[in-house]
Amino acid sequence: MTAERQEAEALDAADGLASFRDEFAIDDDGRIYLDGNSLGRLPYATLGRVERVVANEWGRTLIGSWENWIDLPTRVGDLLGTELLGARPGEVVVGDSTTVNIYKLASAALDTVGASNAGLERRVVVTDTANFPTDRYVLEGLCAQRGLELRLFESDPVAGPDGDSLGQALRPGDVALVCLSHVAFKSGAMADMSVLTWLAHEAGALILWDLSHAVGSVPVALTDTGADLAVGCTYKYVNAGPGAPAFSYVRAELQPTLRQPIWGWFGQREQFEMGPRYDPAPGMVQHVVGSPNVLGLVAVEEGARILARAGMGPLREKAIALTEFAIRLHDEWLAPHGFDLATPRDPARRGSHVSLRHPDARTICDLLIQEAGVVPDFRTPDVIRIGLAPLYTRFVDVFDGLSRLRALIT
Amino acid sequence: MTAERQEAEALDAADGLASFRDEFAIDDDGRIYLDGNSLGRLPYATLGRVERVVANEWGRTLIGSWENWIDLPTRVGDLLGTELLGARPGEVVVGDSTTVNIYKLASAALDTVGASNAGLERRVVVTDTANFPTDRYVLEGLCAQRGLELRLFESDPVAGPDGDSLGQALRPGDVALVCLSHVAFKSGAMADMSVLTWLAHEAGALILWDLSHAVGSVPVALTDTGADLAVGCTYKYVNAGPGAPAFSYVRAELQPTLRQPIWGWFGQREQFEMGPRYDPAPGMVQHVVGSPNVLGLVAVEEGARILARAGMGPLREKAIALTEFAIRLHDEWLAPHGFDLATPRDPARRGSHVSLRHPDARTICDLLIQEAGVVPDFRTPDVIRIGLAPLYTRFVDVFDGLSRLRALIT
Repeated sequence: MTAERQEAEALDAADGLASFRDEFAIDDDGRIYLDGNSLGRLPYATLGRVERVVANEWGRTLIGSWENWIDLPTRVGDLLGTELLGARPGEVVVGDSTTVNIYKLASAALDTVGASNAGLERRVVVTDTANFPTDRYVLEGLCAQRGLELRLFESDPVAGPDGDSLGQALRPGDVALVCLSHVAFKSGAMADMSVLTWLAHEAGALILWDLSHAVGSVPVALTDTGADLAVGCTYKYVNAGPGAPAFSYVRAELQPTLRQPIWGWFGQREQFEMGPRYDPAPGMVQHVVGSPNVLGLVAVEEGARILARAGMGPLREKAIALTEFAIRLHDEWLAPHGFDLATPRDPARRGSHVSLRHPDARTICDLLIQEAGVVPDFRTPDVIRIGLAPLYTRFVDVFDGLSRLRALIT
Repeated sequence: MTAERQEAEALDAADGLASFRDEFAIDDDGRIYLDGNSLGRLPYATLGRVERVVANEWGRTLIGSWENWIDLPTRVGDLLGTELLGARPGEVVVGDSTTVNIYKLASAALDTVGASNAGLERRVVVTDTANFPTDRYVLEGLCAQRGLELRLFESDPVAGPDGDSLGQALRPGDVALVCLSHVAFKSGAMADMSVLTWLAHEAGALILWDLSHAVGSVPVALTDTGADLAVGCTYKYVNAGPGAPAFSYVRAELQPTLRQPIWGWFGQREQFEMGPRYDPAPGMVQHVVGSPNVLGLVAVEEGARILARAGMGPLREKAIALTEFAIRLHDEWLAPHGFDLATPRDPARRGSHVSLRHPDARTICDLLIQEAGVVPDFRTPDVIRIGLAPLYTRFVDVFDGLSRLRALIT
């Protein structure tokens, strides 16, 4: 059946989450934002909250506001953890960047596994070649500094890491840490967190999940899957703004033995005693390290509250419907013109973005932005990444955006 | 001569910087803000800038704004470096927290000195017991992780670290890194950066300066003193708000050999090529690591611009006059009632805050805040820290604040 705009309109009319779009600042200028997803949109609540925090909490209450700010990293962490990540209270903290958090957790994991396996030779860190660059670079650095081996395995460029590809990289007894992305930044493939966590554990390794493209986009089940460690950013589907702080998750059972390497005063048990020796606070507070980024934290809180109200169940349903619709339009309109789908067709195996491959992707992407008023991402060498954030993306946006893309290339 | 309020009023009337106070959000509620200085005040320019960045750059231009945001870390770093720190362009970058930056630079320094002195035994890191807790904790962690010795030396609690006390800790040939605060967080003592840097270099060590209480409060001369490395926060005298990003300085000559340990994608030479291996960008970009905190960076830029307009010369003159006045009032009003000055009397040896010691400091501090409408800091165990930020503190504020303190205790 040929897709018609009326169909998209009908889907929007039946969308139980449609009203959430009104909570975001969206210009009525005909531009279609399908960024996938390097920067989520601005919630009005965040604009107001940031203004109040700057004008009142900082501007008027001044230093007295630290009383309310000091627990933001754990309070916002619990909100993310319990509402979006399937974690328990006390397992998530918000602060620093994803990159710094990967460093802290991977370093801590290597120390822990090293210490608890003193007699074994666990000198390998495993990740896939398609993992996000900063994950690979941080691990490369840690391995170089410690004389460990970084074992990169090839995962399918569309399907992402699976049990077969990971399994071949896991020789028993030598792997200390596995690091994978739950939703792949390029293909949008969603890895099976349960299976891959189980495989890592079978090999005696810890596993660190990067949830940057998963948080707020797909339901995550850190507790149920047995995941050890996780990090993720908040400027994508959590809509917390450019450079908002990232989060760290450490499974409760691991917290007593895991010590992150940056011994900071905000992670000190009795911070304002300013004692002579570092004595890490129990739980996730040890991971706070330096002064929390207050403006970023309140933006994460506002973004997470909207997601929590919408519910990850309904959001997931809508994301599947949006991506199904986009794939159908791709097949019908774009595939005959040299496009390939670079995202899994099985909705259970993908997140909330769809990647379209074309040899001229870079040029097409530039034209889309500059001439067609459609904003996707380009990812080297040949991918146009279409983000379908279910909180504010309409089916007509998918229809109109891909329709403009079709018009460009035909 | 007994101090009279008219004298303070006359000093304010003659103050060439007086109009800068009008650029800050200050309630006309009689409260006197002498926080010293855990959180600087809000500049109106920053309120407007943050609103514009959130509403327009994020809310409307969205991902397109990264074109302007991407160089914020180096652009704002150069502003700080050239206007406030006596550094050359390309030597300062803004990002991460002070704690994370100490970790990055100290770790890099230990690797560099280790590598360039392969035949030597440089296994000692030196700092003073009065240095700020996070500096000591980070160094303690690095030493524990690397099997190095953290050598803590006692500096005079009022005068701070000097050539004698540092000299005794520097046995030739064994020290890799010295870390000191330029202005001591508790006493306000200003260390002689030239002399102590020279001493560290004579011992073959690198030196890392913490400028948190110095930047925007006293002129800093990183180039002229030969300093190797420096970090500092921006939420004190730079007035960039709670949790604003900190800065890192690496002397140009050291940049080619110094590699910081957190290998992030924002420090990658061709970031969006997303290549298979980490290849650090030249210069300070390697220190950016993860996604820059955009709201924090623009706040640093606004705060630094105001300081640059005022000029560190005039600001320093006023800070000396303010602290001299506070010390005179202390001597006249407070010393007879059990107070001790815990800040150097020589203005050349102190920054912009004055610390008053009293056995009941904690209680007095609470009463000052809750009943007298005066906001200083308490620092354990017995210090009331009076911050005299020269951009917006008036001589009548010093007079009235200490007058209320006198009334509390007499």
